[in-house]
Amino acid sequence: MYEQLKEQVCQANLDLVEHGLVTLTWGNVSGVSSDRKHVVIKPSGLAYDQMQPARMVVVDLDGNVVEGELEPSSDTPTHVLLYRHFKDIGGITHTHSPNATAFAQARLEIPCLGTTHADHFRGPVPVTRPLRAEEVADAYEANTGQVIIERFADLDAVAMPCVLVAGHAPFAWGVTAAQSVQNAVALEAVAEMALMTRQLVDQPVSLESYVMDKHYLRKHGSGAYYGQRGE
Amino acid sequence: MYEQLKEQVCQANLDLVEHGLVTLTWGNVSGVSSDRKHVVIKPSGLAYDQMQPARMVVVDLDGNVVEGELEPSSDTPTHVLLYRHFKDIGGITHTHSPNATAFAQARLEIPCLGTTHADHFRGPVPVTRPLRAEEVADAYEANTGQVIIERFADLDAVAMPCVLVAGHAPFAWGVTAAQSVQNAVALEAVAEMALMTRQLVDQPVSLESYVMDKHYLRKHGSGAYYGQRGE
Amino acid sequence: MYEQLKEQVCQANLDLVEHGLVTLTWGNVSGVSSDRKHVVIKPSGLAYDQMQPARMVVVDLDGNVVEGELEPSSDTPTHVLLYRHFKDIGGITHTHSPNATAFAQARLEIPCLGTTHADHFRGPVPVTRPLRAEEVADAYEANTGQVIIERFADLDAVAMPCVLVAGHAPFAWGVTAAQSVQNAVALEAVAEMALMTRQLVDQPVSLESYVMDKHYLRKHGSGAYYGQRGE
Amino acid sequence: MYEQLKEQVCQANLDLVEHGLVTLTWGNVSGVSSDRKHVVIKPSGLAYDQMQPARMVVVDLDGNVVEGELEPSSDTPTHVLLYRHFKDIGGITHTHSPNATAFAQARLEIPCLGTTHADHFRGPVPVTRPLRAEEVADAYEANTGQVIIERFADLDAVAMPCVLVAGHAPFAWGVTAAQSVQNAVALEAVAEMALMTRQLVDQPVSLESYVMDKHYLRKHGSGAYYGQRGE
Repeated sequence: MYEQLKEQVCQANLDLVEHGLVTLTWGNVSGVSSDRKHVVIKPSGLAYDQMQPARMVVVDLDGNVVEGELEPSSDTPTHVLLYRHFKDIGGITHTHSPNATAFAQARLEIPCLGTTHADHFRGPVPVTRPLRAEEVADAYEANTGQVIIERFADLDAVAMPCVLVAGHAPFAWGVTAAQSVQNAVALEAVAEMALMTRQLVDQPVSLESYVMDKHYLRKHGSGAYYGQRGE
Repeated sequence: MYEQLKEQVCQANLDLVEHGLVTLTWGNVSGVSSDRKHVVIKPSGLAYDQMQPARMVVVDLDGNVVEGELEPSSDTPTHVLLYRHFKDIGGITHTHSPNATAFAQARLEIPCLGTTHADHFRGPVPVTRPLRAEEVADAYEANTGQVIIERFADLDAVAMPCVLVAGHAPFAWGVTAAQSVQNAVALEAVAEMALMTRQLVDQPVSLESYVMDKHYLRKHGSGAYYGQRGE
Repeated sequence: MYEQLKEQVCQANLDLVEHGLVTLTWGNVSGVSSDRKHVVIKPSGLAYDQMQPARMVVVDLDGNVVEGELEPSSDTPTHVLLYRHFKDIGGITHTHSPNATAFAQARLEIPCLGTTHADHFRGPVPVTRPLRAEEVADAYEANTGQVIIERFADLDAVAMPCVLVAGHAPFAWGVTAAQSVQNAVALEAVAEMALMTRQLVDQPVSLESYVMDKHYLRKHGSGAYYGQRGE
Repeated sequence: MYEQLKEQVCQANLDLVEHGLVTLTWGNVSGVSSDRKHVVIKPSGLAYDQMQPARMVVVDLDGNVVEGELEPSSDTPTHVLLYRHFKDIGGITHTHSPNATAFAQARLEIPCLGTTHADHFRGPVPVTRPLRAEEVADAYEANTGQVIIERFADLDAVAMPCVLVAGHAPFAWGVTAAQSVQNAVALEAVAEMALMTRQLVDQPVSLESYVMDKHYLRKHGSGAYYGQRGE
């Protein structure tokens, strides 16, 4: 099942290492099938040098394993819930990349301070509310997905393809597993720049809204003109 | 056309990666022909492992493509405008390197705090004014070039081979594409040191002007004695 | 003697380099034999490219060399004392990794600010008291072990597999030499994130205790469900 | 002349790159002959991938070239002056490594905050006074050596094998060219840790003097017991 998707998800997990976003086995990438019936995801705690397409785990959208000899990532319930609610995304990346995680730990959104941010994320990167004790006691990983969805009540998951879970770390997504990795990379870079900018000025000014719009729309939507035609 | 220039520009783009200044596909390098009629520039959004001399795009100084199958960098209008106004430069590098971008986002010039800075840049690295809404709405990339040129009304583009665009990122230039990359590398290093210095003392003292002059003139102009004879 | 343990300890020392935690020859890893009669440890000051299993030194639990042509690490008395008192540990790693060392130099414990921390360490990472002059004058390295043990009077060395020695640097441990290296890696990452978080907010909130417990127990103990069955 | 010394100095310059202390061509290493009549030094501005033993330049202790086709490092007058005054040193390394340079730019000595520092440097790393205008105008590089020597009037160049030149960058030295590189590496690491420690506490406490002495003497002098016998 899903030979091609397994290859894509496996490669995306390896790309995460290549981009320097992984410490030990922290981090996982998944992808959803085109009929949105199954998710291919990294096995739990697998060393990155053991990563092979055939070892990827297939689960249904309730998180039940339907193929694979290894246990799926313990974050699987978060992934499947996001696929259920964000209908336009095809891949999800979870990391503990240091700068983005620092903002998650500080429970601060990442303000849009420059065009690097605006090129990828439309507006400040949101942070969820902390989970309540009862949400942690029972179905913790699914509830992590719930607070993300709750936070996105008024947000568009396509224009804002990432979130910081308070006290935890970032999740990023995209049309494909590969694009979710790129958004995770962009998020870490943007978080680093924002942290450095705050070291230079206590209250940095946000990017002008007309520049935010321009940069976002230069790269996304029908008027986009960044990149090559037909991409 | 321009086989040699295409090779130089392609190599300069790859060197940018080698120096660790590139995240994803952010960043581009161009070079101008010796008759200053054409500019060779990186294609837009091209992955760095796909970079080949034959894929470089040739545009005229109005930014029209005259050769190449791919779209040129979306920043092409900025590049060509700089070549039109800065008659002594032969190459331009644009990056989103994190420390220099942090200063651009903080909208602070980089003060000259040491000889590392003075060796490459004569005086504080300037920052442009923010673009106005109407300058962003229409001909945004050309207007990015305009605010740079406006900022350089009283500055010498040879003695100060870089600039921070407010809320955006740095541009650097040089006699050749290769030298523009070196200036981008020096700029990032100097920005990192300045940020660290500010973490140690709130108001660091500027380098004495006689040391600034000495270091700059040790490396540049007719009295230079750094490097090898005839270079 | 201890062919297999020598290989494990040698590899663990090399892994420390691979993870980027070593500058020059700073850092050492040891492992204890299953009968807890002997410790295999890195030779003192040996360059990492000279590291071979046959060069590892075997000492008894009083720190006397029983096999090996090279001098053991000067920190050997600290290691053997920890093995004597922490009966459940099989490997120890000492590094001067920069972020964890910064906390040790600041003589501040590392607060638990997020799930990355909670996944590995149950509660704040403790810091020892400074050694007194007489403790430094005589049997300094053994006394370094003593202040660690003193600090752990009310702590569980399994749930908290690391410590910061005030004014010095971290020690980490685990069931095996390899696991002690992983804990040293996690400690450095957690210290980096904590330092960054403090740069964003002066007084970051600690992770809710029910999340701390959840994350720790997700990975450790009889109810653990992170990773693969039977690992 | 000096085949072996040329190889050592060439290798030491390459090691500097390997340790990540070099940006572009910033940095140089030299070694003095055993009769202290000649100094072998890196050519000025030479790219590191062009570095070969035969390209090293031989100068006398007045800085005159006695062998070599390339120009010697522009910092040669500083090097030769240090060899004249510090009779026990055999190699000198000059870098613009970022953390040490930040302290030099802040014109702050690096306090001894931990044993990493004490293992290599006895007391705070000193910073010179700024050079005066007339010292910069004439014989600038020699005067850079002079302010170093002036700062060491009451310091022992063996116990304190490095210095920060105010507004410039560090110089480190040692018994050999290779050891001077190691001291430059240790200096950068110690500067990084000190900067991080200051981010955690405004006024970090200095390491207790009895620990400073212990760590320094554990590694240096007749009572040293770190490393292997006979090294």
